[in-house]
Amino acid sequence: MFSKILIANRGEIAVRIIRACREMGIETVAVYSEADKEALHVQLADEAVCIGPAKSKDSYLKMENIISATVLTGAEAIHPGFGFLSENSKFAHMCKDCNIVFIGPEPDVIESLGNKSKAKEMMKEAKVPVIRGSEGAVYDEQEGLSIAKDIGFPVMIKASAGGGGRGIRIVRDKKEFLNSFRSAKSEAKAAFGDDSMYIEKFIEKPRHIEFQILADNYGNVIHLGERDCSLQRRNQKVLEEAPSTVIDENLRKKMGDVAVRAAKAAGYSNAGTIEFLVDSRGNFYFMEMNTRIQVEHPITEMVTGVDLIKMQIKIASGEKLELSQEDIKIKGHSIECRINAENPSKGFMPCPGEIKYIYIPGGLGVRLDSAVYQGYKIPPNYDSMIGKLIVYGENRDEAIMRMRRALGEFIIEGVDTNIDFQFDILNNDQFVAGDFHTGFIESQFLK
Amino acid sequence: MFSKILIANRGEIAVRIIRACREMGIETVAVYSEADKEALHVQLADEAVCIGPAKSKDSYLKMENIISATVLTGAEAIHPGFGFLSENSKFAHMCKDCNIVFIGPEPDVIESLGNKSKAKEMMKEAKVPVIRGSEGAVYDEQEGLSIAKDIGFPVMIKASAGGGGRGIRIVRDKKEFLNSFRSAKSEAKAAFGDDSMYIEKFIEKPRHIEFQILADNYGNVIHLGERDCSLQRRNQKVLEEAPSTVIDENLRKKMGDVAVRAAKAAGYSNAGTIEFLVDSRGNFYFMEMNTRIQVEHPITEMVTGVDLIKMQIKIASGEKLELSQEDIKIKGHSIECRINAENPSKGFMPCPGEIKYIYIPGGLGVRLDSAVYQGYKIPPNYDSMIGKLIVYGENRDEAIMRMRRALGEFIIEGVDTNIDFQFDILNNDQFVAGDFHTGFIESQFLK
Repeated sequence: MFSKILIANRGEIAVRIIRACREMGIETVAVYSEADKEALHVQLADEAVCIGPAKSKDSYLKMENIISATVLTGAEAIHPGFGFLSENSKFAHMCKDCNIVFIGPEPDVIESLGNKSKAKEMMKEAKVPVIRGSEGAVYDEQEGLSIAKDIGFPVMIKASAGGGGRGIRIVRDKKEFLNSFRSAKSEAKAAFGDDSMYIEKFIEKPRHIEFQILADNYGNVIHLGERDCSLQRRNQKVLEEAPSTVIDENLRKKMGDVAVRAAKAAGYSNAGTIEFLVDSRGNFYFMEMNTRIQVEHPITEMVTGVDLIKMQIKIASGEKLELSQEDIKIKGHSIECRINAENPSKGFMPCPGEIKYIYIPGGLGVRLDSAVYQGYKIPPNYDSMIGKLIVYGENRDEAIMRMRRALGEFIIEGVDTNIDFQFDILNNDQFVAGDFHTGFIESQFLK
Repeated sequence: MFSKILIANRGEIAVRIIRACREMGIETVAVYSEADKEALHVQLADEAVCIGPAKSKDSYLKMENIISATVLTGAEAIHPGFGFLSENSKFAHMCKDCNIVFIGPEPDVIESLGNKSKAKEMMKEAKVPVIRGSEGAVYDEQEGLSIAKDIGFPVMIKASAGGGGRGIRIVRDKKEFLNSFRSAKSEAKAAFGDDSMYIEKFIEKPRHIEFQILADNYGNVIHLGERDCSLQRRNQKVLEEAPSTVIDENLRKKMGDVAVRAAKAAGYSNAGTIEFLVDSRGNFYFMEMNTRIQVEHPITEMVTGVDLIKMQIKIASGEKLELSQEDIKIKGHSIECRINAENPSKGFMPCPGEIKYIYIPGGLGVRLDSAVYQGYKIPPNYDSMIGKLIVYGENRDEAIMRMRRALGEFIIEGVDTNIDFQFDILNNDQFVAGDFHTGFIESQFLK
């Protein structure tokens, strides 16, 4: 086992990793930017090294500085957390070259899974269902129609160069196809100067379901069930839960088997997440694999009893997976609300500033993963997350009641937060009924 | 189910009960003394009624005022918490007479279990092992010797009127008996003016092991395993853990069966705790049954997954026990440290005052049950408990590491606390080895 680990991150995930290390008797090195001198991760770690100015590219993304800090402090491994360098294969390579263990998969695995089309190709070969689509660019409307017919309606026509919703059409019937294709094409031409189009199956009101996997360096792979991350705003997850109301035991086994197969096909090791879209009939499609710990990993920890950060460290140090698939039992229900310093009524504008007062909810089944404290100034340079409020309950009803209770107790003064917004979601009838999809927040709350 | 419950208590247990009620959709009424106007339980409850001046006897023990507040607010039930009126059979009677549900056992059960000799008699009849002793007072030394021989050495000679350790002798051999009896007797005469003596089996370095039981109103009784509460200072529990390092599966079953038998013999209903002394060979002896929720109930919740406060409420409302003995599985390990506003280096002198700053440890497996907040003034009128820091781990080693980690993060400014003292216990080799007894804290830390 390692005796010292450097955490190449900040905020609550850095604190989360430091806590796991401390409980394992491993010394920790924090790195920090000049904006983070007062940050909690700096205070909690055994050592701390300043790696540059506030801007991420000059500090948390500055590979050389982080490698130097690691060598300087004699740390044997780097935990990259999420974001920043966590999915940067070049950084993982650099670690390897310097004989530092990168706590994550091999650099080439990061690279191939980070390339969306390469990853999709790999998954297809492994018989992992992917969303059907045209192979390469489509210019001709008749060619497009024949591809659409082959895929089956509804389909989505997308500008290859697209962004911001422009050059996108959803076509539900072959009669509409040609008109839609032409208008999307001319819109794309006008917007991007590029009218090459891409056609893929359109999934109606899908759920975002992701599977947590753990893989050791000896080919053992298990999954730890799913997380439902359908509640998003602009592709940012807002509230996550495990298990999902749309996944029953059969589908969990089926998708879990596929997730394990996908990880094996990629030659994966360490913790990873396979994201799927699931339609209303239980069909599921591979989206991507995240080659790092996820923000929302705690809800899986709550329902499985597995400490994912400790598992990451154990695996990276060369330990064999101590758990087999049969050991993983999903018990109870967990919900995570991301608590952000932002103002929902002003378009969720980030609201950095000083936490003047904080009261943290406690008691049975309530967990807060956070890096703030009273008097802490949230710097404007990074994301606006104050913390993750996580509850565990015997079942979904109890988890919902407990989250309402905990949100009701939570007091943060000095910065605006989305606590009331989260409370509204928890009190929404459709949410309570488990009846939602990835467009739910936009359609229910942001009209 | 009740729609409104009055909580006849204060501090963290009042907050604990309010939280459970809120999660069950039950409205809550707090009662408070004039010293507790700013208390958290007052702020968290739906309604709050002042029931008198600071002194407990004028407020929290003032039965009429509490009954009036209940009638006035239309609450259907009273949760008494622990301490105060929780084991007062007269109060339970009064509730009954006023058609208010007292959340606890029947008044006559409280009464008979509250009377130590009556309880012991009852347990003997139910074949629950009790500590063997003389029946009634002993004056004659030869009679004493013959009783001692019958019980078997070592025995303890105690002054019936005893207190403060005076008039007590431990006798390990019959040869010592007569001398010891004479000197204890004359010491008792001098100290109390009463030389009637009592002889009982002396349990060498015992563990204090208690079993949590749940009983409904229909004769169903289950136990939820044990708590090891051996770490005490002047009979006040300091640190508790579940399960105990000295209880294996067989002994747990044996003691659990006895605990259930004891509860059945008493005609018990609701949550209760049977306290045993356990000797080094696994012999166990009934001490007493506490007819209320215990301070240390959370560690049982952590290892069984059962919310004991919700169970109390459900049982009191007339629900049948939804759990059978087979449903109770002890999983993982939990430790509770009582965090008090006191100064260990000044004889644990209570240190009320204002909490100027607080940082509460968080993350996986950490729970705080507390009623304090930054700016809160701990009044001098009640006990000095700031809160209960509870950790859960996969096993005892992880729980110990996690508790050390959490204690290390905990910051309280403005009042002295026993956090460092708890930290010392957590780092004591004998504690870590599970090698301790009820005199451990006195012998290791308070010499």
